[in-house]
Amino acid sequence: MELWFTEKQTPGLGITCKVLQTLHREVTPYQEIAVLDTEQFGRMLVLDGMVQLTISDEFVYHEMLAQVPLHIHPHPRHVLIIGGGDGGTAREVLRHPQVEKVTLVEIDRRVVEVSRHFIPEVASSFDDARMNVEFVDGVAYVLNKCGEYDVILIDAPEPIGQAERLFSMQFYKGIASALREDGIFAAQTESPFVNQELIKRVHSDISGIFPITRLYLAPVPTYPSGTWSFTIGSKQYDPLLSLRNGGLDGVLRYYNADVHRAAFQLPNFVRELLSKEVLL
Amino acid sequence: MELWFTEKQTPGLGITCKVLQTLHREVTPYQEIAVLDTEQFGRMLVLDGMVQLTISDEFVYHEMLAQVPLHIHPHPRHVLIIGGGDGGTAREVLRHPQVEKVTLVEIDRRVVEVSRHFIPEVASSFDDARMNVEFVDGVAYVLNKCGEYDVILIDAPEPIGQAERLFSMQFYKGIASALREDGIFAAQTESPFVNQELIKRVHSDISGIFPITRLYLAPVPTYPSGTWSFTIGSKQYDPLLSLRNGGLDGVLRYYNADVHRAAFQLPNFVRELLSKEVLL
Repeated sequence: MELWFTEKQTPGLGITCKVLQTLHREVTPYQEIAVLDTEQFGRMLVLDGMVQLTISDEFVYHEMLAQVPLHIHPHPRHVLIIGGGDGGTAREVLRHPQVEKVTLVEIDRRVVEVSRHFIPEVASSFDDARMNVEFVDGVAYVLNKCGEYDVILIDAPEPIGQAERLFSMQFYKGIASALREDGIFAAQTESPFVNQELIKRVHSDISGIFPITRLYLAPVPTYPSGTWSFTIGSKQYDPLLSLRNGGLDGVLRYYNADVHRAAFQLPNFVRELLSKEVLL
Repeated sequence: MELWFTEKQTPGLGITCKVLQTLHREVTPYQEIAVLDTEQFGRMLVLDGMVQLTISDEFVYHEMLAQVPLHIHPHPRHVLIIGGGDGGTAREVLRHPQVEKVTLVEIDRRVVEVSRHFIPEVASSFDDARMNVEFVDGVAYVLNKCGEYDVILIDAPEPIGQAERLFSMQFYKGIASALREDGIFAAQTESPFVNQELIKRVHSDISGIFPITRLYLAPVPTYPSGTWSFTIGSKQYDPLLSLRNGGLDGVLRYYNADVHRAAFQLPNFVRELLSKEVLL
């Protein structure tokens, strides 16, 4: 017997993976969590039927969400992560010795517990003394903070249902307030091939709040279209002009300084999505 | 009723697309040719069950295969294309007024005929006076040529069956002989996520023949993993140092000079695939 898991990424497109074993499956008050062992990608975390990460390609997503802003900010001490209960983004942040404290705000405690059990190489930093995990709503958490963080990372699921609020103007304004006066934030902002309207709207919203707004790209084979976008909002530091040596040569599998600069060089069809004033 | 076409890209991974209509299907002496109209990507050309192109994302592949070498060579007059019977690569080459002659060598006449009928926006250049199409074997054709071409583009299918010869040392040596003394060639060389051994071997082979060998990357959503590699072998011109203004601003949808340079900035895991001497 062959078992295949298919995620319908859009109404007309799917990715399908041969499953060696279903390691875990449960329904929490927030979502369905599953862990599959796949032939192509190894272990895979699936939330509400959508691939969240696989052992094979998570390094690209997590390095690019975390390492880009952490190499831009000259002294990232206090970092807030919204979502990211699998721990991959925190793992990347904690590679930086300058980081004194990471606060991870994940609404579903079971995502952390399941990840620690089934994908420990991703959820490897929960015992780090600098880690502080809050199981509360990320939007409410951010809206109550003021001038606390150097870097905020939005490791949110697709903008469906509750997660839609993580792509809202109100939330971005809250992030701006929660950051210090030289703070910077990065959010995953979906595929430039599949989610063009979202990218356009989010980029316009963020550039109305932050003096510096930039989109960058990276490949993630198991996400729709295989190419993913991230958007940075920064109060002072320019992603291309402010770039420190993180001392992580030989440690990272995707990120390096050349890749950092290259990720911001956008193809014409993506440039066209973003408004002219923003591109400069 | 819903009809879905699934390509098993590897034994454990597939892409699946909702089909609105099967526009064409035939078996030629060389392969099965199909044209599907898909909900996500529009018309799709499928050869032996493998997605060759779709109307939605072909611009990335064709621009990046053709525009990168054509912007490196300072005076590309005579260009040879091996494969590429759909016409997309030729369309990109012929955007350059400097190009005096394009020779396209496609083994299967029906690929050209079917493409002209069903995907005319890709197969748009067959009536150009500079086009010369030969329906013969690409390897044999190249091995009979000496010092004729400024640029050679290998628009080959996956290295399976007959197409394996298009990834062989003998073929690369033939290309070197067929090029002029300042010639340059580019070949599609599969996915850095899925076909690492092939990329490694091909890069090593080509760098044993050409003084300058470089890999570059681009996203192609309908190809395995969504990220594709191309390898350049060049006798004189460096892909990063020799870059002319092609005068194609406002015409191309993916390529620009910044993207050209960025495409050669490789992530750590791809750098590691290539040998150290080659990377410099």
